[in-house]
Amino acid sequence: MNKNKPITILLTNDDGINAPGLYVLYKEMKKHGKVYVVAPDSEKSAVGHAITLSDPLRVQNFYKNDDFFGYAVNGTPADCVKIAYWALEINPDILISGINLGSNTGVNIIYSGTVSAATEGMFLNIPSFAISLTTFTNPNFEIAAKFAGKLSKIILANGLPRGTLLNVNVPAVNSEDEITGVMITRQGNAMYREEFDTRTDPHNRVYYWLTGQKVKLEIEPDVDDRAILNKKISITPVQFDLTNHGFLDELREWGIQY
Amino acid sequence: MNKNKPITILLTNDDGINAPGLYVLYKEMKKHGKVYVVAPDSEKSAVGHAITLSDPLRVQNFYKNDDFFGYAVNGTPADCVKIAYWALEINPDILISGINLGSNTGVNIIYSGTVSAATEGMFLNIPSFAISLTTFTNPNFEIAAKFAGKLSKIILANGLPRGTLLNVNVPAVNSEDEITGVMITRQGNAMYREEFDTRTDPHNRVYYWLTGQKVKLEIEPDVDDRAILNKKISITPVQFDLTNHGFLDELREWGIQY
Repeated sequence: MNKNKPITILLTNDDGINAPGLYVLYKEMKKHGKVYVVAPDSEKSAVGHAITLSDPLRVQNFYKNDDFFGYAVNGTPADCVKIAYWALEINPDILISGINLGSNTGVNIIYSGTVSAATEGMFLNIPSFAISLTTFTNPNFEIAAKFAGKLSKIILANGLPRGTLLNVNVPAVNSEDEITGVMITRQGNAMYREEFDTRTDPHNRVYYWLTGQKVKLEIEPDVDDRAILNKKISITPVQFDLTNHGFLDELREWGIQY
Repeated sequence: MNKNKPITILLTNDDGINAPGLYVLYKEMKKHGKVYVVAPDSEKSAVGHAITLSDPLRVQNFYKNDDFFGYAVNGTPADCVKIAYWALEINPDILISGINLGSNTGVNIIYSGTVSAATEGMFLNIPSFAISLTTFTNPNFEIAAKFAGKLSKIILANGLPRGTLLNVNVPAVNSEDEITGVMITRQGNAMYREEFDTRTDPHNRVYYWLTGQKVKLEIEPDVDDRAILNKKISITPVQFDLTNHGFLDELREWGIQY
């Protein structure tokens, strides 16, 4: 990095281009360099790593409050990153996905559009991180935004290993002196226990709403949700070799044949 | 397992309930036990691990050719497994997702609805595997279906580790004597190089279609695509701890503070 050259920053999210978390992040990151926004035109939570193959994608200019400009895409977060890079030819120094409303921890990160956008950046060899604020109510995004700016500089100075992104979760606090530090964590084992709310529509047909609540399994000392409980910012390095390497030898011993 | 008790089998896919690969698998698995089908009512390829939070889910009976019955859901593959278990109260001995039209190998498995359904099964502690046929043209699903039956028995006899599913890819061959064996593999590094086909609609607005082709990076000797090249069935044990454990110590040495 040439220290004097302003950096270029690509922002996206899964809450949609009009989300407050993205707006606060945008205003903060403008202090650090040239900021591009390419984000879904509507909320895309829990889309996981979906990409759009069956529909054409469109890009529209989006303005907000005279101080925000971005490109709105009728697709998923992963689509946004692909289209930013390949079609809009934005090749940023760093990609930030967020600030998400609600945590992305434990195995639930596989449902996360926020993390999937950072994953797409990582596939394109762009240093990338996802950042989430661990609350759905009365979010104060300022602390997370400020940390995103700081972390960007640290990432650009140190470099991430190929194939690795960072998944950042910021505890919800009222003032920044409540933050007790930063913890490098493993992905924990928190997951949701689902239920379906069964209802009947006016035409007497049954339908289901997915509902559920986060199950706190054992929260080990070095995992993401433990950091949040301790009011620390959690940073988990994430990669996508999904192989259960420890099981390969045993599976070979099964002697499976066609 | 009581060997005399017929097993119950849950089938799903991402190509939709009307897909030929699911139909062939259904007919084969009926030889092995009681078969339930809960599958998307339309094609859901590349949905990744999406789940539906914003819309009600509906379940409809689906009949085909007098010998196929299943439940069609207006959701993703992951939705189907959740709704089968929680709402339809199907608690099978084994879950099979497929037979997918086209391979699911390399990092592309994160886009795979087929694998995501098996992942949901695994989260529910159901022994689960995804099975794909590595062709889009002239698919012959019989060989993969037969192997699915055989593999189900082996899995039920041996047991999978908690948190692990199997991702199976079957090479496209014309007759089963072309299959040269079974290989336990690691997830390879194949990925797509994307492009966008830029077009203009009749109203003079630009739109984009995602396109691209698989990039064969170095195909190492023990990875999924190598097995397929050698006309072997590939079986990769897959888990969802995405932590880059090898990078934790170095990241801690960065000394990131708030």
